[in-house]
Amino acid sequence: MDLDSVKRFLEGERVENDEEGKAKESKMANLRHRFLEGFVTKGLKVDLIEPGRVVCSMKIPPHLLNAGNFLHGGATATLVDLLGSAAIYTTGVPHSGVSVEINVSYLDAAFLDEEIEIETKALRVGKTVAVVSVELRKKKNGKIIAQGRHTKYLAPRTKL
Amino acid sequence: MDLDSVKRFLEGERVENDEEGKAKESKMANLRHRFLEGFVTKGLKVDLIEPGRVVCSMKIPPHLLNAGNFLHGGATATLVDLLGSAAIYTTGVPHSGVSVEINVSYLDAAFLDEEIEIETKALRVGKTVAVVSVELRKKKNGKIIAQGRHTKYLAPRTKL
Amino acid sequence: MDLDSVKRFLEGERVENDEEGKAKESKMANLRHRFLEGFVTKGLKVDLIEPGRVVCSMKIPPHLLNAGNFLHGGATATLVDLLGSAAIYTTGVPHSGVSVEINVSYLDAAFLDEEIEIETKALRVGKTVAVVSVELRKKKNGKIIAQGRHTKYLAPRTKL
Amino acid sequence: MDLDSVKRFLEGERVENDEEGKAKESKMANLRHRFLEGFVTKGLKVDLIEPGRVVCSMKIPPHLLNAGNFLHGGATATLVDLLGSAAIYTTGVPHSGVSVEINVSYLDAAFLDEEIEIETKALRVGKTVAVVSVELRKKKNGKIIAQGRHTKYLAPRTKL
Repeated sequence: MDLDSVKRFLEGERVENDEEGKAKESKMANLRHRFLEGFVTKGLKVDLIEPGRVVCSMKIPPHLLNAGNFLHGGATATLVDLLGSAAIYTTGVPHSGVSVEINVSYLDAAFLDEEIEIETKALRVGKTVAVVSVELRKKKNGKIIAQGRHTKYLAPRTKL
Repeated sequence: MDLDSVKRFLEGERVENDEEGKAKESKMANLRHRFLEGFVTKGLKVDLIEPGRVVCSMKIPPHLLNAGNFLHGGATATLVDLLGSAAIYTTGVPHSGVSVEINVSYLDAAFLDEEIEIETKALRVGKTVAVVSVELRKKKNGKIIAQGRHTKYLAPRTKL
Repeated sequence: MDLDSVKRFLEGERVENDEEGKAKESKMANLRHRFLEGFVTKGLKVDLIEPGRVVCSMKIPPHLLNAGNFLHGGATATLVDLLGSAAIYTTGVPHSGVSVEINVSYLDAAFLDEEIEIETKALRVGKTVAVVSVELRKKKNGKIIAQGRHTKYLAPRTKL
Repeated sequence: MDLDSVKRFLEGERVENDEEGKAKESKMANLRHRFLEGFVTKGLKVDLIEPGRVVCSMKIPPHLLNAGNFLHGGATATLVDLLGSAAIYTTGVPHSGVSVEINVSYLDAAFLDEEIEIETKALRVGKTVAVVSVELRKKKNGKIIAQGRHTKYLAPRTKL
């Protein structure tokens, strides 16, 4: 994928402003937000995108809070999955691949409306296996909220 | 938490059948499904619940699919988080705790409408640290879809 | 590898009883124990070996203790690595592969001379990716000492 | 622990140059190298040590190679365990703690006599839980060999 496509993939589809485009866009956007990826990435902004590295920011929304009123561990893991994949896409791999392993260490809580920054770095993108590191930080002081890694298998699932 | 409360927590609030209860239930249910936990656990059924062990089943719904049309890795991770917590609750701990670490290995794909079974076992529930193992399997043949572990810190977050 | 070869690999080289063989054996055994694998697996016994599953036992030796006088976390991780590989070998894969990821949760301490049991199960052995689960338990009461997973890439390293 | 003690702990005991000291040192050093930690850290040099961060270097020795003739995954995991602990010590915690979880992603091979650099950073050192990240890199080109995390529980084991 080229960098613009990865950005659009993360921020949600945005199409040309002609009538047909508009209609298509609102339908796709609606559809998108009914699925887990859209549910979790709603409001995500891409601040920097380059081959092997993506930096995003986000304000913690109410629908991603857990019972303790801070960012849900499952939301963090979904971000590690999704943004990890995005960082792999930026290196120009032909196949998006499937997840092999995900891990996340939870270090601090992020509360409602907190601004967070998410940095994703490709540690290795080989012919068939890619590993990325994902770190969530508080924007105001840089404190780490969570750090994880995502391992993907890049060839078609049938060869796994 | 007692076992019944954990079951209700996983399957969604269900209140007494009087008029007021009904009203309250539908509002809570609506609210619940606007949040990540409700979004992911909608349709989850508890098949067995005993101290330290929970077995649930679920039919893969469309809103948890990824771009490859199988169960999203983030949904799996959220289930590991949530059901791992549930298994800890069943042992009667006074405090629900906060997540320290989550990891998931993805072994097979689960497609739309597939029936899956999720077994969660407490490996250790100590005074301050608990570790649970979570396994997702295909109901028709027992093949493992994913296996993960969830580590929680059981004392209040301020003592972490 | 056939099951006998895996057993020999785990328990250390044992060759025919002719003069030359004897000489060779003692040299190899000496050599072996100067390397990490031999250092860690010295005294390991294979109790059960079948395709996809290996059960071993061991008495905790002094050289694998940590400063707290219980089994060193690095020794546990090396056992997860090594026995995980062994369980993959038992399925008859042509190539031993390289490690992609290892993780271990430490649940209890194993002290000097304690008898432990290590069970390894292949969760998935595909064409290119294999995942195994490894569990260390106390022999006297079955309490879990550690549980981990090992992910390997099975094709030659140059294709990784 | 103060920084000097951590350095000594990593590089091996070195005592004063009087006769008794000398004798004691050689005995301790001998003893040390008969144990796993000494076996794995033999030859390790501390290049930088500051609160929360340790950088070491090492030349891959023959006794840490695997059957493929590159750094053994168990040796890497033992280094993640040991150097992770060292980075926690540098922050002045009163109790060394016990391991809760370790994970390692293997990204590249390090061959005999290769010079590697190991950087350890404390991601969080709280009252009871600490998490560190450990990265092994090739010295000649900075390529990442492995990246892992180590989670420790800092209070006495009896409170775990």
